[in-house]
Amino acid sequence: MIIVLRLDHRRDRDKRTSTHCGLASRALGADKIIYTGERDPQLLETIRDVTRRWGGPFRVVYEKNWRKVIKDARKRKYHIIHLTMYGIPYEKRLRTLKKRRNLLFIVGSEKVPREVYDLADENVSVTSQPHSEVAALAVVLASLGKRARTAGARLAIIPQKRGKKVVERKKK
Amino acid sequence: MIIVLRLDHRRDRDKRTSTHCGLASRALGADKIIYTGERDPQLLETIRDVTRRWGGPFRVVYEKNWRKVIKDARKRKYHIIHLTMYGIPYEKRLRTLKKRRNLLFIVGSEKVPREVYDLADENVSVTSQPHSEVAALAVVLASLGKRARTAGARLAIIPQKRGKKVVERKKK
Repeated sequence: MIIVLRLDHRRDRDKRTSTHCGLASRALGADKIIYTGERDPQLLETIRDVTRRWGGPFRVVYEKNWRKVIKDARKRKYHIIHLTMYGIPYEKRLRTLKKRRNLLFIVGSEKVPREVYDLADENVSVTSQPHSEVAALAVVLASLGKRARTAGARLAIIPQKRGKKVVERKKK
Repeated sequence: MIIVLRLDHRRDRDKRTSTHCGLASRALGADKIIYTGERDPQLLETIRDVTRRWGGPFRVVYEKNWRKVIKDARKRKYHIIHLTMYGIPYEKRLRTLKKRRNLLFIVGSEKVPREVYDLADENVSVTSQPHSEVAALAVVLASLGKRARTAGARLAIIPQKRGKKVVERKKK
């Protein structure tokens, strides 16, 4: 299982970036995203709607208490990785990450409490430069080589050199 | 040279995602980003400020006419890649892309005109699933194996297992 924990969502400011975190998590093979911060039913619904149409399973939940999420994951023997520009280059950690069955990736928004750096098993960086939690998450997930599960999909893309081809599968 | 063309920026709605496109482009080794859509000096300044502090060169420009950008790139023999969920899986195209010296990556926002699919040399997808232009761009750039140039940086990160270590270099 790969779970993504998105810290400190703010309804106005993070609407799009939190949506991108959720959709990229699904597309690149995570099983679940947990949002903390402000409660935002519309955000959850956006991701769930994509999963209903494009397939899953992919779970989306809100949890008020991020410490609880991390502690629960620890109890269940998840390997906990905080993605931060200050951490160890991800290329050096990939072999280890690939060996672990259960991973919790933590991505912050504006300011991440010091406690997160300490609670995580490791702090891992994509490039040691300031950029984007969406980009960092995507690069690491892609490096793990997983892809979206698409069971029950109503829609699927047939890749094209030019233009768009979407097939619709009838529900049985 | 790797150039990123971000189509149809909208000041309000895309403020954060366009910023993420710019910063991820820089962090993952592109040389320049060109924004089209609404003129947004603050967006340009945000990226330039990061480049001033964290190093470059990385150019950020606004251009009203995206067709002109594509046509100029074609004249200068750039290979033009439109990133779209409808395109050919990027894994199949990496070898070709790595051989080309000059690349223009086009990333859209809400709705990309059909003309872009036709003007591009290729339409390339990351996962054939709906997700995020920031994520798609980051995954493809990371796969090309380049990294930010940091000449003239005032700030640099020393990767840490826990916590943050930033060194400040004095300007000579």
